[in-house]
Amino acid sequence: MRIGIFDSGLGGLTGYRALRELLPTHDLVYFGDNARVPYGTKSGEVICRFALQDVRFLLSQQVDAVLVACGTVSSNALTLLERTFPLPFVGVVEPAARRAAEIASQKSGKILVLGTAATVGSGAYEKAIHAVDPALEVRSVACPMFVPLAENGFTSPDDIAAVEIAKRYLQPYEEFAPDAMILGCTHFPLLSEVIAKVLPTPVQVSAGEEAAKTMAEKIRSLSKEGGTGKDLFFTSDDPAAFRLNAATFLGRPLDGEVLRTDIETY
Amino acid sequence: MRIGIFDSGLGGLTGYRALRELLPTHDLVYFGDNARVPYGTKSGEVICRFALQDVRFLLSQQVDAVLVACGTVSSNALTLLERTFPLPFVGVVEPAARRAAEIASQKSGKILVLGTAATVGSGAYEKAIHAVDPALEVRSVACPMFVPLAENGFTSPDDIAAVEIAKRYLQPYEEFAPDAMILGCTHFPLLSEVIAKVLPTPVQVSAGEEAAKTMAEKIRSLSKEGGTGKDLFFTSDDPAAFRLNAATFLGRPLDGEVLRTDIETY
Repeated sequence: MRIGIFDSGLGGLTGYRALRELLPTHDLVYFGDNARVPYGTKSGEVICRFALQDVRFLLSQQVDAVLVACGTVSSNALTLLERTFPLPFVGVVEPAARRAAEIASQKSGKILVLGTAATVGSGAYEKAIHAVDPALEVRSVACPMFVPLAENGFTSPDDIAAVEIAKRYLQPYEEFAPDAMILGCTHFPLLSEVIAKVLPTPVQVSAGEEAAKTMAEKIRSLSKEGGTGKDLFFTSDDPAAFRLNAATFLGRPLDGEVLRTDIETY
Repeated sequence: MRIGIFDSGLGGLTGYRALRELLPTHDLVYFGDNARVPYGTKSGEVICRFALQDVRFLLSQQVDAVLVACGTVSSNALTLLERTFPLPFVGVVEPAARRAAEIASQKSGKILVLGTAATVGSGAYEKAIHAVDPALEVRSVACPMFVPLAENGFTSPDDIAAVEIAKRYLQPYEEFAPDAMILGCTHFPLLSEVIAKVLPTPVQVSAGEEAAKTMAEKIRSLSKEGGTGKDLFFTSDDPAAFRLNAATFLGRPLDGEVLRTDIETY
């Protein structure tokens, strides 16, 4: 079995990394749409069009299942993808919603969702959390500057600018005192320490990691056979830049081939 | 005569605004590629492909001349556009280079260029400045966070995060003490006061405004006849969002129709 993973850019590598650890012998194909990143500031219609192209490309690489490692696509286009293509999908919304609900149910029942503008606008996390437990109290906050901060290396908890921007987004929720906080965009785990500096109490739930766990369970239930553990990476922009910047998201140099694809032709 | 103007998104509206004032009776067609913004973090190859599509779209709108109101396209793809399409182009690099050279020549001969990563990587501003006067001393600094700061409204000189990020980029050039500073990306004039807080002395040259002046001179030399002074705006993403966010760049609400176009089909 070959598993496809895609994201608007590099953020989804946090999901890839978790999946690679859980499924060491399966073949993984990653696609990052670096030529059109970010998705989170764009409209639902554009996000849907891009997502369809991304999956069509992964299908051309003979994948058997797809991990949608992008919070924006998972919250705006997952139903469309599931209706359009006859293969199993796992998005980042439901797994993170379940995990956060589990944590909050045992405490005061309060969850804060951090996402891109498009993710928060979709209301997908609230819906998924309330499907688990309608009594949970959910607040959502769009953090549009977090993706550029993560991509440009402003991620240290000692970074005045990063902490100041995090304060702007998160301090209004200090009084709400959430038990769990969903990092609803796969870029956000890079800012984990910055976020914890502003709101230290809530348990951080990484949407990419939870989705990887769900995908691994699904794959194991479908077939126990792995592959050769091969990684193949594709980007719609420069492969050399992808390789260079991937290291930040992986916490180690990227192994495996990086190829370029012209996504607009799919 | 109908003049086309394009940018990766909204930044080019600073050039549109200047051109509209200089040519009140000409018809202007603006295109913002909001579905694929930003361009400045992407490779030269992708920038060139997008720029060709942008101009093909403007040609479908019967424009007679094109103002490339995007620092990234002007510095990476202007020659390609001029070779490909038989119509007059004005980019933002040469006009700003001339103006900055004029200022610096009368002082200590030092210019600092602020741009996106792709603009600074191209070396286009240095080349254009040295074509005017090879004796001028030029330094360039990539400011990749300035576009997201401008787009997300972090533009006040009292904004701690914005000033902190500007310090990171610009303080290393305090000692260089430039006479002129080229705001080489059409988004940057929104951060004018933030930039001045960190480096108050150098004269700021807005690349979009200088390009608008050059275009107005060129148009007047070609024909004195204007049109009906009509504005037409196109975006590759949501027209309502374009209209809403345009006001920040124009300093007033946007007049005129905003239509959507699917740029990937051009």
